[in-house]
This record gives sequence, C-alpha cells and structure tokens, in this order.
Amino acid sequence: MTVHRNDLQLDAEGRLRHFLSIDGLSKTLLTSIMDTAESFTGVAERNVKKVPLLRGKTIANLFFENSTRTQTTFELAAKRLSADVLSINIATSATSKGESLLDTIRNLEAMHVDMFVVRHAASGASHFIARNAAPHVSVINAGDGRHSHPTQAMLDMFTIRRNKGDFGDLKVAIVGDILHSRVARSQIHALNILGAREVRVVAPRTLLPTKVEQLGVSAFHNLDQGLRDVDVVIMLRLQKERMRGALLPSEHEYFNCFGLTEDRLRHAKPDVIVMHPGPINRGVEIDSRVVDGPHSVILQQVSYGIAIRMAVMSMAIHSEAKAAGGGAG
Amino acid sequence: MTVHRNDLQLDAEGRLRHFLSIDGLSKTLLTSIMDTAESFTGVAERNVKKVPLLRGKTIANLFFENSTRTQTTFELAAKRLSADVLSINIATSATSKGESLLDTIRNLEAMHVDMFVVRHAASGASHFIARNAAPHVSVINAGDGRHSHPTQAMLDMFTIRRNKGDFGDLKVAIVGDILHSRVARSQIHALNILGAREVRVVAPRTLLPTKVEQLGVSAFHNLDQGLRDVDVVIMLRLQKERMRGALLPSEHEYFNCFGLTEDRLRHAKPDVIVMHPGPINRGVEIDSRVVDGPHSVILQQVSYGIAIRMAVMSMAIHSEAKAAGGGAG
Amino acid sequence: MTVHRNDLQLDAEGRLRHFLSIDGLSKTLLTSIMDTAESFTGVAERNVKKVPLLRGKTIANLFFENSTRTQTTFELAAKRLSADVLSINIATSATSKGESLLDTIRNLEAMHVDMFVVRHAASGASHFIARNAAPHVSVINAGDGRHSHPTQAMLDMFTIRRNKGDFGDLKVAIVGDILHSRVARSQIHALNILGAREVRVVAPRTLLPTKVEQLGVSAFHNLDQGLRDVDVVIMLRLQKERMRGALLPSEHEYFNCFGLTEDRLRHAKPDVIVMHPGPINRGVEIDSRVVDGPHSVILQQVSYGIAIRMAVMSMAIHSEAKAAGGGAG
Repeated sequence: MTVHRNDLQLDAEGRLRHFLSIDGLSKTLLTSIMDTAESFTGVAERNVKKVPLLRGKTIANLFFENSTRTQTTFELAAKRLSADVLSINIATSATSKGESLLDTIRNLEAMHVDMFVVRHAASGASHFIARNAAPHVSVINAGDGRHSHPTQAMLDMFTIRRNKGDFGDLKVAIVGDILHSRVARSQIHALNILGAREVRVVAPRTLLPTKVEQLGVSAFHNLDQGLRDVDVVIMLRLQKERMRGALLPSEHEYFNCFGLTEDRLRHAKPDVIVMHPGPINRGVEIDSRVVDGPHSVILQQVSYGIAIRMAVMSMAIHSEAKAAGGGAG
Repeated sequence: MTVHRNDLQLDAEGRLRHFLSIDGLSKTLLTSIMDTAESFTGVAERNVKKVPLLRGKTIANLFFENSTRTQTTFELAAKRLSADVLSINIATSATSKGESLLDTIRNLEAMHVDMFVVRHAASGASHFIARNAAPHVSVINAGDGRHSHPTQAMLDMFTIRRNKGDFGDLKVAIVGDILHSRVARSQIHALNILGAREVRVVAPRTLLPTKVEQLGVSAFHNLDQGLRDVDVVIMLRLQKERMRGALLPSEHEYFNCFGLTEDRLRHAKPDVIVMHPGPINRGVEIDSRVVDGPHSVILQQVSYGIAIRMAVMSMAIHSEAKAAGGGAG
Repeated sequence: MTVHRNDLQLDAEGRLRHFLSIDGLSKTLLTSIMDTAESFTGVAERNVKKVPLLRGKTIANLFFENSTRTQTTFELAAKRLSADVLSINIATSATSKGESLLDTIRNLEAMHVDMFVVRHAASGASHFIARNAAPHVSVINAGDGRHSHPTQAMLDMFTIRRNKGDFGDLKVAIVGDILHSRVARSQIHALNILGAREVRVVAPRTLLPTKVEQLGVSAFHNLDQGLRDVDVVIMLRLQKERMRGALLPSEHEYFNCFGLTEDRLRHAKPDVIVMHPGPINRGVEIDSRVVDGPHSVILQQVSYGIAIRMAVMSMAIHSEAKAAGGGAG
C-alpha cells in the first residue's frame, strides 16, 4: 500500500501525529476530531470526570508566552485523560541560562516526555519543534504568534456544529481585528474546509490584511451589512494596545462602529449564535447584554474547549502508538 | 416537609453547601465537621495517605492574596481526597487582562470545576462568589480581608476538642491584634457556638475593636489578668506593619506587655494548652521556649488543619451530590 | 547483632535513610543504588510509565535556589513512583515572612510530608535539615552550595556503568571549573569509592582547589595531556560569572585552552564517552560537534537521571518503612 505523507501533522497512515495548524488538514480529519470530542463532552458531566486513556503518559506544557486560561484548559484536559502534566516555567528555566530551545526539547525528550503543548510569540515555533522532535513525541500548538491557534478554531467549529448541525448552510461573520488574530486565521481555514456557505470578515480597513479575499472570505467594513442574515457571529477580542498604536480611534468610537449590541444583532438571523474566544472586553467589542443574552454560546465554547483538547491529545498520542504497531506489523 | 433555608452556606436539607464563615452555623454542624475530621486524622498516619472520596473532582485554588502555607494545606487535603487541583495564578491570569472576577468564575464553571477555594484581601469576596456560583459549584473561604477564616477557626476548635474534650468547662484567652484578625473573629464565633464557658480577648486598646464585648467576649488589657485560670491560650501573629502604623510602640515594648513567656503562662491552669495560627514571630508575640515547650500544641494545629480541610471539602461536595439526589427523588 | 551507625545517611541496619552526599557511603550502597535504577530504566520506556511504589506518599520539593531542570527531574521521578508532589515556592512562602527554616520544616512534617528534596545555595543546608528532621522524614540533597550534588554524581556513575561496565579499568577526566563545582566534588568521591583506575581533573590553576590531589585525583593544566588515553571525559559547565570575576580570560581564550573539540578528543581512547551535566554552553566549554557527535552520552545522562532519582527516593522511603518494621519486631 502506498501512502503519501503530505504533511508534518499526519503519520504515514494519515492519522494525527502533531496538531499545528488547521491549514492542510482534510474535512474528514476535522470531522473526526469533533466526533472524538463528542465522546468526551459526557466525561465532564460525570461524577468522576476522568478516563484512563493517557495514564502513565507525560505531557509538558511549554508556555513561552503567558496565557493562564489556555494553559489551564490544556492542564485540565490532560488530567481528565489521567496523564501526568509538567508545567515548565520557561522564563526561569535553562533556556534563560543560555541553553537553546532545541537543547531544552532534547532534554525533555530524554526524560521520556510524550507530548509538548507549545505556546510561543513567534509564528512557526511549534512547527519548528515538531520538525525537530523525536519520533515518540507529539506537538500541539497552543497558539504561535499571528499564525495559528488550531485548538481554539476547533472548539469554535465544535460549538457551531453542536448548535447548528451541518456547515453547508451557514453564513458566518468574524468581526474585529482580523489582521493580528491567529484565531481568525485558523477559523477561516476551518470554516472553508468544513464547507461553510459563506465566511465574512468585518473590520475597519486598518485591521484587515491586504488581499484578505484570497483566504476565501468576503470583506465588510460596515457591521450592519456584515451581520445581515448570518447564522453565526464570532467576535474577536480587541487588543487595547491597538488603540495606542494609531491603528484605531478611541475605544468609544470603535464600539460605535464595530461593537456588537442587541440592536445590531437584529440584522442577523433570528436564531443567530454569538461567539467570543475570551477574555471579553465588555463594552469595547461587545455589549454586556449580548454576552449574557440568549444568543450567546460563549460559555459553551469554554466547556467544549476541554473536550476538543482531550480529543486532540488522545488522537495524537494514539496515532503514535498505532504507528509503532504498524511499523512492527 | 418544610425546610427553612436560612443561610447561603446550607442547602435545603441543612447540609453544608459552601463554607464561608462560622457565623450563622449551628453547634450540630460544627460538631459534625469535627467528627468528619476525626475520621481523616487516621489517613495522614497511614502508609497510603489517600482516600478516593473526591476522585475525578476538580478543585480550583483561587488565591488573590498570597499565602503559601494555607494554599499548601488545601492542596494537600485535596490530593489526599484524590481530587485534581488547579492552582490559578490570579496575578497573571485573564483577570489582569481586564476580565471581571465574575467572568473568570463563569469560565471555570464552564470547565466543570466542582469547588473554588478562595483567598482574597477584600472582606466578603467568597460570599460574593458563592452568591453568584452555579448550582454545581461549592465555595470554601480560605480567608477574606478582616472578615473570616473559618477553616482556621475549625482546626483550632478541633485541636481544643482533641486536647480538652468538652467546650462547656473551658476558659479561652485570645491574645494579640484582635482588631485586624479574621482568625480571631472566626474563633470567637466558633467558641461561642460550641458553648465555651468564657472567651477572653487580651490586647492593647489600639488593637481591640470598639464594643468588642458585643461579640460575646470579655476584654482584658493586662496579659497576666487575661491569662488567669484559662484552659486555652490562642496567640495571634503580630503583623509587623502595625508597628510602623503607629498603633503600637516598639517590638520590644510589645513583647514586654503582651508577649507570652513561661513565667506569664503560670497564671493559666497547670494543664493549659498554647496555640498559634502561624507563621510565628518568635520573640515578638511569643517566647521560643513556649513555642517549643510542653504546653504548645502548635504543630498539632498544622496536622489537624489537613483533616479539617478534608472534612469541609468532602462534606460540601457530598452535600451537592446529595442535593441533586434529593431533587430527583 | 551489633550494627555501627556510622553516618547520618544510614539507618541502624545500614540502609539509606537520607541521601546527602557521596562521601562516606560504601561501594556496596552505591552499587545497590545503580542496581535499583536499572530496574527503573524500563519503566520510562513502557506505555504506562508509572509504578505504584510511592502511592499515597507526599514529597515536598524545597528549592531555595532556582533550578528548573533538577526540579523537573525530581518531580517526574516522584510522579512516576505515583507519589504526590508539593512544590513549595520558598521565595514567596512563610520563610519570607520571617519564619525560620526549622519552623517551615516542622510545619511540613506536621502535614505528614514523607520526604524533602532540598536545593540550597548554602553548603550543608540539607545536612542541617536531615539532622533536625522527624524520624518519619527522609531528606534528599538536590545540590547544596559548592558542597555536593549526589544524585547528579550517581546518574553520571550509572551512565558510565551502562556504557563501560566495570569501573576498575577506567581512566576518567573531569574538565573545567573544579573549584566551584559541587558536581565535580561528588563525582570524584563516587569514582574513588567505585574503584576507578585513575581520576584526573583538568583546569586552569585558578579553577582548581589548592591541594586538590588530597581528594584522590591527579591534576592537569593542559587539556591534551589530561585527555590522553582516558575512557570517560566529564565536561563541567562554565559559569559565565567567572569571566567577570577575573578568574578567567575571555570566553574565546578559555575555549582555545580548555574547550573540548573533535580534534582534542582524539587524544582520548577511540571509544571514549563524553558527558556534561547541562545546561551546555555550546562553543564555550564544548564544541557543538562533540555535543551532538558519536561519543556524546549527554542525553543518556538526562534519561538515567530520572531512573537514579526514582531509585534513591524509593530506597530512602523503603528504608524508613523497614526500620519501623524492624523496631517493632
């Protein structure tokens, strides 16, 4: 049997080996991640919220960039899979004594760590680690620079699927700072791979990449028009630093033009759902009444974030075991 | 059956749901906490110091105020109950990115956290969280402002009961900075609820609340008189900041007037026990020979602290499960 | 049976109770540590990398000096033995509120901690703790000042044994800053106890202790001569602070005289192995090609570090249980 190994993320049999970016993955694989997450949503509601799938495995959280929330969800996901978790404080570790990133990785591999969860301010950092990792190690990208945040995108897709079913009929608007957002980039890829009917980005010109249409989206600079008849609105967090960076006028003016209110939401379909990756700036990119209102599925996203991370972790490790089995057979 | 729900801390059947303050709890409930702790004192001495009571439960330590010792005891108690523990570093978490406390709580609830252990510099913080928590979540107060530190008070009561038996015959003196002490406030409530014969507070006037007698204590400004014939002495830690705050003369002068020495302890009953919540300032509020002497039960307090926290955690979670069962029946 | 209790580290039956320094231990004991580690090397390669040996035991990491790598390996070793691990952040703990080290220790003992892993900048700190520890507590030295780093030395010995077999035929060169190195001190003791044929130290005069020969080594100030016909080269990390301290010329000049290159390595035996405790300064004390070359066993050292720490931890706790059994019998 000839198998074409088309991607760093997949093994020779096409199964997940690393999870680095949505780009390049198939609809089948994204669907199978969501199907696996489906089986984990029940675990969180059980009396004993643990499954022994990753017992005796060691997972190292390498957070070069601080993100308590994302780190917490990965740690929880790992513990609910019964893995042992090491949280390496990179700022005070050997890398700060002048050791190279690669030497740090080699050392952790020698300690028989099975998986790295990597957060880094530089785009491509987790690809670099995956490319240089030992065969027994899997790498999960927990956000790299402006590039990719694939588990966030997958929990968003899972939230959409659980609320809306099939993607083929859906119009989705992503609103906010598209230019600097790794989340938006990953969402756009995922929505297109899963076959969403229309993906819109809504933002002032200064916060849109040039030639954004080439990503497979339609661009809007007017919120009311961008929201017209959509099934899903995804709000992005506005980094307040952008205000100081002269890319934007005042917070107040931004909210007037692009802040999501109950009034504006009436342009969307009556059963629209509203999403936000958090943390939320209430009153900046979104009005509190929308956050807490009937269309909001923001807290569902948080819950499903655990299930998606459990899915990705168990699939990537599983794949490695399978590959070893396949190699021996 | 009509059940009056008289308190945020109890469920409809009168069982512990949150543990926020001693005030308002019954003698029966405090006694039942101590009885439960009794069953856990053996666990710490066993070869395998673990029971599976909270296996698969997730407990989040939310320490807005730094306290390594209290956090360690809660973490140990949770681990010995086989729970998974998340220690959220609040200083670097999303709350510092401008997210509100309530949004942080909502997020952790969405991750199916079962219990919050809360330490906060503001009085009432854990009540606020309990009032706003989801039905499946329990809140344990690990110290809030000057208000309350109920697990500390209960471990003190447990230490007294284990050494002295019944409370009805006991005279207890609490010595030190009553004015700023959440520990003293909680101890006074607990001693009165449990029916101690006499509760005394001993301090300079500047460190006593006005109208302190309304709390059900007698006030002394002279240590020798305050100690006369007592069965239990509880020393409080002197915050050295008070010296700078002009509330107090020098450390040396404070020790001369209110420091506990072997000589002064002779005013108490021959079988008096001496307690201190720690950390101790040797030579400031208490002489080293008393700390290490035959009357000291200070290290027993530390041991019993684990058992009391195991008791409170398992009762609050147990009650929630029971309540769900009751609601369904 | 009369047993002479010759050392703080051993119990009355001569079994390991604390592990503080190599000095004073017998060849039999060092060999038995390595034999025990042998049985743990397989655990790291299994699918489930855990054994239940220390289930229900509590191990406290007391790192008064920051060392992410050493702390990580102890934490991993403890978790793979199924122990609960407390990592006490000493900088923010009660000791910084003025509590003495001894009071901190007493408190942790009262919480029924079974073992302390101690890292401290002061020589003798872990001896001090062991001397004052309760009978049920074991102390493991994870590095104290310039004095000792016994688990590092034992993982080095284990790496040598796994590659070379018997010590009796071996010539070993330790190269670098011997003067300030607790690692070198422990290695020299271990090599002599295990009967290495020759132990050499190679360094500029400013980085050698006076009368170093009394430790049982021969001193070389020329790298090529020091390497001649050796079976094992152990490179030490060069603390860059030494450059500023006027003990050394420039980095460049140091590398020229004492840096290990492929060329220089030709003076050693053809099957020489090269070791380094890490973190490595590539291009300062050792050339990158040697680090990544065929003679390097540096990553093996990291792997064996877990097995050695598992061995020492399980033997020290085991011994305590045995001692209790012996006392009762």
